[in-house]
Amino acid sequence: MNYRMVGKFIGKILMVEAVFMIPSLFLALWDGEPEVVRAFAFSMAITLVLSLFLSYWGRSSQNKFYAKEGLACVGLSWIVMSLVGCLPFWFSGAIPNFVDAFFEIVSGFTTTGASIMPYVEGVSRGILYWRSFSHWLGGMGVLVFLLAISSVGGTDNGFTMHLLRAESPGPNVGKLVPKMKQTASILYRLYIVLTIVNVIFLLLGGMSLFEAICTAFGTAGTGGFGIRNDSIAGYSPYIQNVCTVFMLLFGVNFSCYYLLIIRQFKSVLKDEELRLYLGIVAGSILLITLNLKGFYSTLGETVRHAAFQVATIVTTTGFATVDFDLWPGFSKAILLMLMIIGASAGSTGGGFKCGRVLLVIKSLRRSVHQVVRPKHVEVVRVNGEPVDEKVLQSTNAYLAAYCLIIACSFLLVSVDGHSITTNLSAVLACFNNIGPGFELVGPTCNYAAYSTFSKLVLILDMLAGRLEIFPVLILFSRTTWRRR
Amino acid sequence: MNYRMVGKFIGKILMVEAVFMIPSLFLALWDGEPEVVRAFAFSMAITLVLSLFLSYWGRSSQNKFYAKEGLACVGLSWIVMSLVGCLPFWFSGAIPNFVDAFFEIVSGFTTTGASIMPYVEGVSRGILYWRSFSHWLGGMGVLVFLLAISSVGGTDNGFTMHLLRAESPGPNVGKLVPKMKQTASILYRLYIVLTIVNVIFLLLGGMSLFEAICTAFGTAGTGGFGIRNDSIAGYSPYIQNVCTVFMLLFGVNFSCYYLLIIRQFKSVLKDEELRLYLGIVAGSILLITLNLKGFYSTLGETVRHAAFQVATIVTTTGFATVDFDLWPGFSKAILLMLMIIGASAGSTGGGFKCGRVLLVIKSLRRSVHQVVRPKHVEVVRVNGEPVDEKVLQSTNAYLAAYCLIIACSFLLVSVDGHSITTNLSAVLACFNNIGPGFELVGPTCNYAAYSTFSKLVLILDMLAGRLEIFPVLILFSRTTWRRR
Repeated sequence: MNYRMVGKFIGKILMVEAVFMIPSLFLALWDGEPEVVRAFAFSMAITLVLSLFLSYWGRSSQNKFYAKEGLACVGLSWIVMSLVGCLPFWFSGAIPNFVDAFFEIVSGFTTTGASIMPYVEGVSRGILYWRSFSHWLGGMGVLVFLLAISSVGGTDNGFTMHLLRAESPGPNVGKLVPKMKQTASILYRLYIVLTIVNVIFLLLGGMSLFEAICTAFGTAGTGGFGIRNDSIAGYSPYIQNVCTVFMLLFGVNFSCYYLLIIRQFKSVLKDEELRLYLGIVAGSILLITLNLKGFYSTLGETVRHAAFQVATIVTTTGFATVDFDLWPGFSKAILLMLMIIGASAGSTGGGFKCGRVLLVIKSLRRSVHQVVRPKHVEVVRVNGEPVDEKVLQSTNAYLAAYCLIIACSFLLVSVDGHSITTNLSAVLACFNNIGPGFELVGPTCNYAAYSTFSKLVLILDMLAGRLEIFPVLILFSRTTWRRR
Repeated sequence: MNYRMVGKFIGKILMVEAVFMIPSLFLALWDGEPEVVRAFAFSMAITLVLSLFLSYWGRSSQNKFYAKEGLACVGLSWIVMSLVGCLPFWFSGAIPNFVDAFFEIVSGFTTTGASIMPYVEGVSRGILYWRSFSHWLGGMGVLVFLLAISSVGGTDNGFTMHLLRAESPGPNVGKLVPKMKQTASILYRLYIVLTIVNVIFLLLGGMSLFEAICTAFGTAGTGGFGIRNDSIAGYSPYIQNVCTVFMLLFGVNFSCYYLLIIRQFKSVLKDEELRLYLGIVAGSILLITLNLKGFYSTLGETVRHAAFQVATIVTTTGFATVDFDLWPGFSKAILLMLMIIGASAGSTGGGFKCGRVLLVIKSLRRSVHQVVRPKHVEVVRVNGEPVDEKVLQSTNAYLAAYCLIIACSFLLVSVDGHSITTNLSAVLACFNNIGPGFELVGPTCNYAAYSTFSKLVLILDMLAGRLEIFPVLILFSRTTWRRR
């Protein structure tokens, strides 16, 4: 392990983070909240000192960088970033317990949106801004941001590839253009433009600028932290529909938007993952609307709530307009399945990803055919292109890791004694970066009921889910820490 | 598809089934129950006529037999066998609804033990005997029985291999001796001897012969149909402990017993699957005992109930001595995990199988190592022997199929509107051939609450679980039904 190189890298990440705390500091100054100002000032100072120390320590590092370092870099930098990122919550007294503050910021960066705060109205705007902004930064990824703005790692495309692969969601990293730095830059430009459009639509609905920005951060990163106690329920139907549409838009593979820009409309229309994603969304809305017959006064209201909840769960955002825990069993079962499936690869959403579902189903179909005709050779194709066997293997390995982590986490949080549905949905909601689950962790509740131990398990789940398991898993392997 | 050959084969299976109905017929004659006698006589007549018709139709079939025919044979014969096997229940009026009767016998043959009968005390002994016997026959497999007693398929080892592979549980079929016919014969002899020993131990505890035989059938096949309304709860602690021990013994890979007979003690001691299985059992009993502190009056009672329930769930039997649905959350979570893991490969138990868990974990560990050191080649080993990559791939395919079937079945039975825990545990309990789940399908309840549609889904789950998915899955593929 090239420790110094990793250290230098984390130093850069922390520098970015310190800079991103500035808006919150100014907001707190503007609002005249000296405690919050102090909290952010201290946090920034600590972050900066740590950043400078790591940069100094790693200044003469060798540029030898392998997949291992790339993954460890991502895993470690997210942990360190969260450890300092939670300081404003803790210092300001908004969240008096450190583990709770840590839980909250990990939930923010991983775009989970699971909260331990029972009330957010009345909390300082500086704090709320930082809380929502963590979604936006975590959504597209802080390393991707770093790649986009700086020439970290020099011109070595392999190195940046390792990083991008580790932080970007999906079975294989979507290279938009040959150069990774440019890909990262295009992704962030798309992300910023879409977020601004979202803010404009929210402003048109009568939201204040602050509310619109925070809500857009939560939508863009598919995070789910709201700035009202009842999430999005209190807003107008227009605002709710805007959120539904934008949540769904941010759950689409960003390479589709790039293809639209370079006028490859046909490729977008034929994209199998996009079709599956939209098919799942449309089917779920239809089935839930039918199942909710008589639940709300008009069909329009039913469709609006069904669509919003489907969008919020499938994109793993976690906003809510109604308490879906009160819905009938079939609707809840659909939502539970959507929690697992998740959004598209290459989007800001979490979950197992539609792209992987597609690969698993296609490779299973081939297995059935192979059982029937053992000598027949069949290639799995997506969008007409043959899929590399290695991608299929790693998708299956991902499924295995996914199942094992859910099983182990479920067992561990069960020690607290809550019900099966609470525990299972809590693990699924954290691991898939959604936020709300069912029963005790339902949309009107929060994660305060869990013990510190369970919170730590769920924190690891959130990180493993956001970083797609392996960057976190390898931190537990002895092989990783061996010096070459 | 070689239809005539498959037909001839199913004809033979039906002949065996008709013969096995004789004891029930005599029991009903002895007890002087003309209705039950008539029910069995009619059922046997129908079974025989169908058997003779199929044998005649397939008399001149070509002996061309591939993996496809082997799998389809197994899948279809289990369905046909159940369709005629449920006739005694239906004709005798013990279960007035045909789908319910079908559910009950599929639950029997697949050794699930999920019942739709609220009361079994007072039901005719002939019926109860047939119900319990179905566990015993299904446990080791009716095709394996046929292979053991007859020279079906002639001397073609490849053909019998296809059949044995399709009906025997586990990632790869354990060939005890080079010849399949002999392997089948050894397996059944071991099975019979163990069952007789079980009966003797139960008789020593003061059970009547009828009760002892039926209970032993349920234990040996890891089925779970009881002959008392409260399952095993009303029996003495001695009987309960005997059941615990024998359930665990029948959950061991039978090749271990064969190795013991040929004095290969070291191989048994070093068997990794056996170690994992025993480790899981011991660990679960310990944790549940700790978690149940204060639940029962003495430590002895706590350990007895913990051990019984762990044994009944991990071996997927489904007997019960207490209502474990009332246990605290952690104990229930452990039981839920045991439901999925299941017994050893090559045993009569169901579930995902310890052997597969071992392979999944080992292959995941390799994936982590490969991420860290991409150029390093690593072979997965079990019991010191390298595992064929094809076995690893098919294990991963099995996991994918396993997850997809659970997800789809869960969605389908959710239409009935029951709770998430009820639906999920019902699907798990049927698919893994256990029997009782939680809440509405808990140990003191039954499956009568589900609609006919859901019962059909659960019937398919039971069959898919017992036959390890692919023999049932290929029946839904167009490729299977194409003529060569």
